[in-house]
Amino acid sequence: MAPKISAKPPKGTRDIQPEAMAVREHAFVNIKRVFRNHGAVSIDTPVFELREVLQNKYGEDSKLIYDLSDDMSSETGEKLSLRYDLSVPFARYIATNNVATIKRFHIGKVYRRDRPAMERGRFREFYQCDFDIAGAYPAMVADAEVLVVMMEMFDALADTSEFHQKLLGNYCIKVSNRLILDAILKVCGVADHKLRTICSAVDKLDKMSWEQVRDEMVVEKGLDEAVADRIERFVKLHGEPLKVLDALRADSDLTQLCADAMDDMEKLFGLVQVMRDGMPQRLSFDISLARGLDYYTGVIFEAVLMDRGINLGSIGAGGRYDNLVGMFKKNSIPCVGCSLGIERIMNLMVKAAEQQAKANSKQGNGTIRAACTQVMVVSQKGCMKERMQLCAELWRSGVAAEFCYNENWNTGKQITSALKNMVPLVAFVGEDELERGEIVLKHLASEQQRAVRRTDLVQEIQEELDRGAGV
Amino acid sequence: MAPKISAKPPKGTRDIQPEAMAVREHAFVNIKRVFRNHGAVSIDTPVFELREVLQNKYGEDSKLIYDLSDDMSSETGEKLSLRYDLSVPFARYIATNNVATIKRFHIGKVYRRDRPAMERGRFREFYQCDFDIAGAYPAMVADAEVLVVMMEMFDALADTSEFHQKLLGNYCIKVSNRLILDAILKVCGVADHKLRTICSAVDKLDKMSWEQVRDEMVVEKGLDEAVADRIERFVKLHGEPLKVLDALRADSDLTQLCADAMDDMEKLFGLVQVMRDGMPQRLSFDISLARGLDYYTGVIFEAVLMDRGINLGSIGAGGRYDNLVGMFKKNSIPCVGCSLGIERIMNLMVKAAEQQAKANSKQGNGTIRAACTQVMVVSQKGCMKERMQLCAELWRSGVAAEFCYNENWNTGKQITSALKNMVPLVAFVGEDELERGEIVLKHLASEQQRAVRRTDLVQEIQEELDRGAGV
Repeated sequence: MAPKISAKPPKGTRDIQPEAMAVREHAFVNIKRVFRNHGAVSIDTPVFELREVLQNKYGEDSKLIYDLSDDMSSETGEKLSLRYDLSVPFARYIATNNVATIKRFHIGKVYRRDRPAMERGRFREFYQCDFDIAGAYPAMVADAEVLVVMMEMFDALADTSEFHQKLLGNYCIKVSNRLILDAILKVCGVADHKLRTICSAVDKLDKMSWEQVRDEMVVEKGLDEAVADRIERFVKLHGEPLKVLDALRADSDLTQLCADAMDDMEKLFGLVQVMRDGMPQRLSFDISLARGLDYYTGVIFEAVLMDRGINLGSIGAGGRYDNLVGMFKKNSIPCVGCSLGIERIMNLMVKAAEQQAKANSKQGNGTIRAACTQVMVVSQKGCMKERMQLCAELWRSGVAAEFCYNENWNTGKQITSALKNMVPLVAFVGEDELERGEIVLKHLASEQQRAVRRTDLVQEIQEELDRGAGV
Repeated sequence: MAPKISAKPPKGTRDIQPEAMAVREHAFVNIKRVFRNHGAVSIDTPVFELREVLQNKYGEDSKLIYDLSDDMSSETGEKLSLRYDLSVPFARYIATNNVATIKRFHIGKVYRRDRPAMERGRFREFYQCDFDIAGAYPAMVADAEVLVVMMEMFDALADTSEFHQKLLGNYCIKVSNRLILDAILKVCGVADHKLRTICSAVDKLDKMSWEQVRDEMVVEKGLDEAVADRIERFVKLHGEPLKVLDALRADSDLTQLCADAMDDMEKLFGLVQVMRDGMPQRLSFDISLARGLDYYTGVIFEAVLMDRGINLGSIGAGGRYDNLVGMFKKNSIPCVGCSLGIERIMNLMVKAAEQQAKANSKQGNGTIRAACTQVMVVSQKGCMKERMQLCAELWRSGVAAEFCYNENWNTGKQITSALKNMVPLVAFVGEDELERGEIVLKHLASEQQRAVRRTDLVQEIQEELDRGAGV
């Protein structure tokens, strides 16, 4: 016998099971609805790009880019790499297709040659879900809409059930502006050539204490202690947007250096407030936010889940990147967008769906339903054609229906299979009923059944489902 | 200034534009509905697999497998390749996850290191759309359901409009059985070691004449002329399933060699007929069908578009592959499934959608609508906040709405932008109306407008859309 091949997915990747896929597809439908309600269109770009398209965009993370074998380029002479995110391909798309304005979303897989650590959710292949607005527009209008889209998207997912609300409902979006952070660092006395490295130290404040970050600045990065201490006062500022803005404006040196960016932030908060009453509970102006990627040029933000004021981690991020398209074509196109931490969100959605299934499992077995079959067609032993014929009638009417493939299963065994798969309704086609032109329709949870005319079956099924039989 | 990077997608790949994506997503929703109505669940597997998983499955086409750079495997020691289809990963999934029975669909991208020939639709990256049933079941029941699913799927796409019907409605599914073709070749005198190569010559009969195929058999492949002539009589058999079956059964030598396979085919045609009246118009028993891939073991089929009896090309194919899972685990699991030629189908869907848009373009500009915005919120110059506030109200009520980002556009310019983007309704928020708590709702196609109470706006919009304003 031939030796068996190792039947496993590559390290850092995984198969997604039907139950998790059902949750994922339901979430994607909701997310897409929010995006489309804002007029966004959908585009698709290849999973791999020319290697040079991806180079010099991701700072230190460039080493995580996944290359295709160069042997593969013999016919085309191209060096190719798997995409690292959806933003750089989007900028390339705008340049390739000479787009002047677009509001688009894209749900697709991206690749990181990271050390796999699946238990900590670090994958080499995972989905991203991006929403971006490209075009030269008055300041902050598009930025404000992106923030509102993020909020509506999280709200839509949390609204699925009380369990979803509990796990996903308590989010907060930290907002800042890279121009203001740079100005702060300059005012504190950081030299220009150290701006980016000190910035990346500041970005660690959500995971490390100020003392540790200060150590990194002073010991590792050679910053003057007095400069570090001046930074502390600023980067600890966070909370209600307009109050933080007031605190910044109290510093006249700083105000002189970045008055325009401050005015922009005031405008941004005002526009979000116009679209969302109660904005201050969801937005926090957080000076410690810095964002790692090279390409941001203005407003930056990160959505985090909170529990009693404790940051449970990021579920989305984004910002303005006005120069990225300009790396591919003569005239740049300003862009602002967000990317959802969709794998993290999906883990929580699956957890919530499991809790919900458990709570509803008086009749079911408490597992998530992967199929959406509404009716199991059953018969006596052997009547395979009768099952198939009735099933086909239901399919033609748009009813999700199945029959058991095993000809010699008795009716009880067929019904057991319906229960196991959480199918709500059973349609029994028996010999006597066949003669009378009737079908026995049974609601499995209530165990109530009745004979209905075959010609009325679809309507009766619809009424049962409307009464909640499908839940 | 830094040199610009070439802004193009890799050869053999392409960006999909918003209009084509709108058509594609609409088609995917319809296809998924058919699959789900049959109780299928959805799974996801990685875009790349261990190289050994893909090897020795695709016959001569194995050279088209796309490898990832081996440098990338330094941490994991794995050699990886992009998936060539969704069937082998599905078999690997069954083995990895110890699945005994599953009915699943999968829509995803696959990769071929083919010579790119985009104008002839030969891409290096394209979507496949698969539906498969795995499990040990009575003969032909699952095979029959797969054929019915294919028909329902094509029917659903063709039913979109008269234009879709014209381009996609006239399909036919050619069916055969590899066991019968092998038996025919044996009866005709083909030696066992030449079965596969003569089989692959037969498979070319949809593109070449019998004389050319005979030449390939005799001249290239050294087949005896008399043997070739015996084959001719059989491979020209095609058409109404039961008639072709009768013709085969008239040959007693052949019947002796593959009586079981013939009985299977009779059962298959009977079961399809049970689920679909008028089956004979859609199914053709075609002895010349051979299918290239190594892994098929029984029933094989190919869906083709026809025009006045002329074969316009394949739009889907599939068959039974009972031994593929056994290459990964001790006990094999029988499988049967189909894969849609989704890129070909999409080209026709886009063409049909363009024709439909043109026919409906008394008011519009005849291009496919990519966004689904229902209402453009407009105002006088400058009233940006009023636009945003009303838009936000609509979003909260689930209405797809947009506003123009340009603060100083006058009302006319905003309405022009609505017309250009084929948005059916305009909601005007003016200073006077604001005071009266009213909004002017205008239906752009009919140019009819009326003032409605702001609190009734959502309901009035819904009524306009129900009256067909969105079409």
